[in-house]
Amino acid sequence: MSTADSFSATYQLVASSRDEAERTAANLCIEQSVEMPLDAVPDHVRNSIATLNSLNQIEECIWAANVSYSKLLVDDDRTQFLNVLFGNSSIQQNVKLIDVENSYLNEILPGPSFGISGIRKGLNVNDRPLSCTALKPVGLSPSDLAERAYQFSRGGIDIIKDDHGLANQGSASFYSRVASCVRAVKKGEDISGKRTLYFPNITCSPSKVIERYKTAHDLGADGVVISPQLSGLEILSELAEIGEIPLMAHPAFSGSFVIHSNQGISAAFYYGKLWRSFGADAVIYPNAGGRFSFTIDECKDINNSCRSEIGVFNRSFPTPGGGINRDSVNQWMNQYGNDTIFLIGGSLYQHPGGIEAATKEFQQKLKNYE
Amino acid sequence: MSTADSFSATYQLVASSRDEAERTAANLCIEQSVEMPLDAVPDHVRNSIATLNSLNQIEECIWAANVSYSKLLVDDDRTQFLNVLFGNSSIQQNVKLIDVENSYLNEILPGPSFGISGIRKGLNVNDRPLSCTALKPVGLSPSDLAERAYQFSRGGIDIIKDDHGLANQGSASFYSRVASCVRAVKKGEDISGKRTLYFPNITCSPSKVIERYKTAHDLGADGVVISPQLSGLEILSELAEIGEIPLMAHPAFSGSFVIHSNQGISAAFYYGKLWRSFGADAVIYPNAGGRFSFTIDECKDINNSCRSEIGVFNRSFPTPGGGINRDSVNQWMNQYGNDTIFLIGGSLYQHPGGIEAATKEFQQKLKNYE
Repeated sequence: MSTADSFSATYQLVASSRDEAERTAANLCIEQSVEMPLDAVPDHVRNSIATLNSLNQIEECIWAANVSYSKLLVDDDRTQFLNVLFGNSSIQQNVKLIDVENSYLNEILPGPSFGISGIRKGLNVNDRPLSCTALKPVGLSPSDLAERAYQFSRGGIDIIKDDHGLANQGSASFYSRVASCVRAVKKGEDISGKRTLYFPNITCSPSKVIERYKTAHDLGADGVVISPQLSGLEILSELAEIGEIPLMAHPAFSGSFVIHSNQGISAAFYYGKLWRSFGADAVIYPNAGGRFSFTIDECKDINNSCRSEIGVFNRSFPTPGGGINRDSVNQWMNQYGNDTIFLIGGSLYQHPGGIEAATKEFQQKLKNYE
Repeated sequence: MSTADSFSATYQLVASSRDEAERTAANLCIEQSVEMPLDAVPDHVRNSIATLNSLNQIEECIWAANVSYSKLLVDDDRTQFLNVLFGNSSIQQNVKLIDVENSYLNEILPGPSFGISGIRKGLNVNDRPLSCTALKPVGLSPSDLAERAYQFSRGGIDIIKDDHGLANQGSASFYSRVASCVRAVKKGEDISGKRTLYFPNITCSPSKVIERYKTAHDLGADGVVISPQLSGLEILSELAEIGEIPLMAHPAFSGSFVIHSNQGISAAFYYGKLWRSFGADAVIYPNAGGRFSFTIDECKDINNSCRSEIGVFNRSFPTPGGGINRDSVNQWMNQYGNDTIFLIGGSLYQHPGGIEAATKEFQQKLKNYE
């Protein structure tokens, strides 16, 4: 296959010898392409068979296999792209997807429509990290939620996102919640004198997501939250192509792919590169040091994937959440730097002075970082 | 919460002491419901907080936690149901979802429209396991694929499914492939004198699946293949509610959820119960003894979940694939019994006498089992 007709992906394999690694890699090539015994593949379609470009030992028992796929296997179908990358291999114990060739990502995926610069432009903030909080808990009415949004906005927060558990429950239907919160945020902006963006959660059945996105935009929302692993990654790319407002991706239901060292998909690739390529303008991921299990280095790798060059794609805003509170945010700013959205929920609600005071303190810490 | 207002789910937790298990369970209850410090949850919405019903030690370091969720958290939203069950918990190392209360599954999900009895009725075969093969490889033209389908049909196979890698590639567009294969199967039926069902693969972007399902039905397909983890589980339930033709679910991209012993989702629950509840009439899963890692007991647990009573739901056909060939099928029939679809791909294509002869042998083995 010439490189114009193929794209490459890299997998981490576990194998105790080069022989075993070669067998595993050969099986992977078959599993992810023709999925049948090679002697039964007709001669005229043998270019459908994936091939091994290289196999390098990384450390004891760990190998990196670079595999070449014919583009004809995918043919511009983004869901089929995921299937070719990791369909049946997801069922195998010792295979982990770690990268895909940038030029092919550019070829079949849209990347972020807004990215870091687009979100910054919406806020007119260029030289410091951004603040973000989550509107919660589920169960509150639209007016209760709007009151909280109002207080955050008065405090001058940059972004208010819905909790990913706010759907279309009777307690706060999507339409009513978004309408109320948009109004409340605007009212707060008049007092704070600065912009606050509101991102409602549109995660729902794949067949209804686009409608909910358009409703959010019509009601004046500044962006949306979506959990790609619940509503479908290809939906994310379709929203990015509509491109009316920014997309903040949430990791709900995605964890089993990314938290195993020898299986699944590399977190840096999955959150930082794949979601970004599918169109996430901001990528929420489970931060180190809190309730989840990533190390700081793994989080920095995700940040790096969000921000580093992938050909023509805009950069995505890494958005660590979980494990950050009012007191620790300075430390995390030093770790992660300027182009980061810091998502703090719980500890703002717990502030003895209330939400507005908590937000002002949070905001001041970010300003000090300029 | 009264049981009418709540539903329960069971999780397996890893913890070295009862104290640790209790902390893990308490955190799980918060994480999957309000996701904020309990002291910050307003009094009037405290019924949003999930509660622990029971915590039992199963074996050393392994605990079963039964958790009660308010139905208001979900409110008939099936994607939000998945989020409540395993959204953020998917990111945690020591939590595995293992069951949900049957009556609630009945309440919010449709179950299979056809199930075992419906698929049997389409074939008029009641007393033996069913045969199934996969049309492949990707890269063949519609007429090449149709020729293969014709040979399988002449041989009298029960079900021909598309390989899950056949999408809408230029080599064999969806429309042209389905039209050609439907005609070829009918021609083969005239020779075999028996019914053969053809199930094309409709997996694609969530926003296009329903259209592709309707096209398949209009063209005369007898069922469809869909990979729920690629196109979205809620889409599966929407197709089940349309209910024109049976749904065969394929495990592509689902493996990372089900192959870890202490994390993810139990395979028996996920494939056998959750996919069935969302509407899968037949459930393909990776069989023991082949390229994948389940044990025979785990496969029997999946079979059992597909077939045992879940209130009003039809039963689903367990469809083991991978690790079954012409020679071993007798052994697997003895293991798995009558209400099973045996999916054999590769070894039929490798038969020295050709596809038709291979199919006749396969079919004879199933008939001997009556």
